Amino acid sequence: MCRWLRLTSSPTAIEVAVNAPRAPLMPLDDALARLLAHINPLTGTESVATFDADGRVLARDIVSDLQVPAFDNSAMDGYAVRSADVAAPGSVLRVTQRIAAGHTGQALQAGEAARIFTGAPVPPGADAVVMQEEAEVLAAPADGVPQVRLSSAVRAGQWVRRSGEDVTRGTTVLAAGLRLGPAELGLAASLGLSHLPVAPRPRVALFSTGDELVMPGDVPPEALPPGAIYNSNRFFLKALLHRMGCEVSDLGIVPDQRDATVAALKTAADHHDLILTSGGVSVGEEDHVKPAVQALGQLDLWQISMKPGKPLAYGHVRRSTQPGLAHFVGLPGNPVSSYITFLLMVRPLLLQLQGASRLMVPSLQLPAHFDWPKGDKRREFLRVRRNDQGGLDLFPNQSSGVLTSVAWGDGVVDNPAGQTIAHGDVVRFLPFAEWLS
Amino acid sequence: MCRWLRLTSSPTAIEVAVNAPRAPLMPLDDALARLLAHINPLTGTESVATFDADGRVLARDIVSDLQVPAFDNSAMDGYAVRSADVAAPGSVLRVTQRIAAGHTGQALQAGEAARIFTGAPVPPGADAVVMQEEAEVLAAPADGVPQVRLSSAVRAGQWVRRSGEDVTRGTTVLAAGLRLGPAELGLAASLGLSHLPVAPRPRVALFSTGDELVMPGDVPPEALPPGAIYNSNRFFLKALLHRMGCEVSDLGIVPDQRDATVAALKTAADHHDLILTSGGVSVGEEDHVKPAVQALGQLDLWQISMKPGKPLAYGHVRRSTQPGLAHFVGLPGNPVSSYITFLLMVRPLLLQLQGASRLMVPSLQLPAHFDWPKGDKRREFLRVRRNDQGGLDLFPNQSSGVLTSVAWGDGVVDNPAGQTIAHGDVVRFLPFAEWLS
Repeated sequence: MCRWLRLTSSPTAIEVAVNAPRAPLMPLDDALARLLAHINPLTGTESVATFDADGRVLARDIVSDLQVPAFDNSAMDGYAVRSADVAAPGSVLRVTQRIAAGHTGQALQAGEAARIFTGAPVPPGADAVVMQEEAEVLAAPADGVPQVRLSSAVRAGQWVRRSGEDVTRGTTVLAAGLRLGPAELGLAASLGLSHLPVAPRPRVALFSTGDELVMPGDVPPEALPPGAIYNSNRFFLKALLHRMGCEVSDLGIVPDQRDATVAALKTAADHHDLILTSGGVSVGEEDHVKPAVQALGQLDLWQISMKPGKPLAYGHVRRSTQPGLAHFVGLPGNPVSSYITFLLMVRPLLLQLQGASRLMVPSLQLPAHFDWPKGDKRREFLRVRRNDQGGLDLFPNQSSGVLTSVAWGDGVVDNPAGQTIAHGDVVRFLPFAEWLS
Repeated sequence: MCRWLRLTSSPTAIEVAVNAPRAPLMPLDDALARLLAHINPLTGTESVATFDADGRVLARDIVSDLQVPAFDNSAMDGYAVRSADVAAPGSVLRVTQRIAAGHTGQALQAGEAARIFTGAPVPPGADAVVMQEEAEVLAAPADGVPQVRLSSAVRAGQWVRRSGEDVTRGTTVLAAGLRLGPAELGLAASLGLSHLPVAPRPRVALFSTGDELVMPGDVPPEALPPGAIYNSNRFFLKALLHRMGCEVSDLGIVPDQRDATVAALKTAADHHDLILTSGGVSVGEEDHVKPAVQALGQLDLWQISMKPGKPLAYGHVRRSTQPGLAHFVGLPGNPVSSYITFLLMVRPLLLQLQGASRLMVPSLQLPAHFDWPKGDKRREFLRVRRNDQGGLDLFPNQSSGVLTSVAWGDGVVDNPAGQTIAHGDVVRFLPFAEWLS
């Protein structure tokens, strides 16, 4: 398995390059801005059933064609009245009609009340509703028309939900670029929209590189060859991509060989908007991905001031069967680096591909319940978990190989380069839930 | 459309019941405890591909059969060395082998270094790695074996990731009852698990009741009959159920008629674990759901101290073709009440059906950037949004009919009954993302 002969027999050109002085690390915000400057929204708009639009990004403004509610309606089960008739407590009215939700009443005359139920239209003439708990039904008099005594005076407008209270006709209710969630689907439905115009789903080709990678299920743990590890990155990357609404093609593990890598990239570019890999992109000479992408397009290797993370490859692969290109992102191979870099760089990329207006997640200021006496020269994303005291506990092992830290944590502290943290310091917390929802 | 004749011709029995003194409202926490006391986890365990297990609840502990990493490996591209050989800066070593990831080396002798790459096994004899940036390759001497000069002294263990650093063999890595997310899938994969034992998905039958409801797409806004509204609840409920990993059967809108409701419930109970409706459950006499459920099982109507929300029906429907029962939950019909009650009551129910260990979402203490001068007698869930100053802004219209408030907001303030809020007060904030992720 040892390939050391290649080193001793080859010139030292690669090693010399490796020993060149390192360029300063790129600040993360600059790297993200540079990445996003390359990303144009996908062309075209799809019409999808509102029922199927959860997680999609709205392609056009939704302007309401109607008022919501469409009509003044009762907020309570009770009696619709004319407030002028009930200026004082103890007023007695004749109950001349009954209006259930989905039905309409007739104009209410002076001295009359309408039995009414939640959501039912308030009849013409009525301007208030009395909740039934404040109405006493009297024995029906001789004419058979029941009467109610109302225990309180009535304020005009009480318990009436006004037409347009939620949405006024002509209002932009949902703006283009909004990522739709359950509430937005409900709101669109309340406007009568059975379908919504959304951005296309990004098509992502996912592969991993590395001779050391073995797929779970292919080899049981007791038979794992020396030096081999199970491929874990592909599992969380696929789940993260699905949560971002992507169509994912899994191209498997590409061996550490240039020809195989070139072939995989060529096929992927024709049918995808983004080619995503993890591993195989670093300063080491064992990487076949970089020259393969460069042969088919372009690739830059960025060294970003972030930890976990640092190396990120961004480029593109030209399509061979049609104009255009597929974006290429090579994530670092360490699981935590790969995970965090996905959240911080690839997630915004995918949102921008869909024309989303909001690419970032909200952060929180919370107290650290730990010490971090030695700040790193890179901006760090420390895996932490909220505790019952409202503070943040630190996962003890912050190594970029330790995926347990991400499973254990419920977010990261975004710690500036060189910054130490003392117990009680307020720090910037980014909860995973905001990235995952 | 008016049915008032029914009132005038019928006895006043229902009206009298309606006028009975109201029972005190049930505290929300009591209602939730009472609900959950009825919910036994579903029986049986499914084995699903790890790739498909996002959002599922783990049915058994996952104990690791291996160490992760399985072997000591390099955290850097560089040189594996014996630290005793590099006690001082400037030491020169012979590079006698080369170890790439996925390959293994030979025992390192005194005075030797191994060119090594990230993730590759550290060879026997070596106990540290020097990053390549701190190694200068010297011109190859006469024997053709290259040499490197190391610029710093070496600490034993440096840049070596120890076997078992992430996971030790025999450790419970993921506990039964854990809801799996992307990171957990990656962690399971790193243990070699291609499949995971998970709880069955809850099967949920969803229907709405109400003569006033019209499905979007059936009737355009301009043709909406008087008193009619579009069904919006079903859209967000379906999306919320899907996010909870449920299999959803959409039974449509059941008319406000008892026979139709009984028939729908009967069919639903045989094939589902939960029957969920919105609307049709209140103190009003227009509700046909309550007697229908009672005819087939049992139903209690709870009045809960929460706003939005308050009425919640909980019961069960006996299965006709097999032993057992389907749970029944009737949510209030107002959109915001329905949405919030789902999050606070139905979501924990669904998690408990799957045996999840964690039913609640974490809350945050954040300053209100608004005044709420009049606390309600019910515990309130005010729709708010985080602002750039780290505070919470209030949606101006907190009516339970205004779904815009949920779409606009990114969470709710959990405000105790009777509590007023002044600008700057620290309040309990529950972000929607934690419920939706």
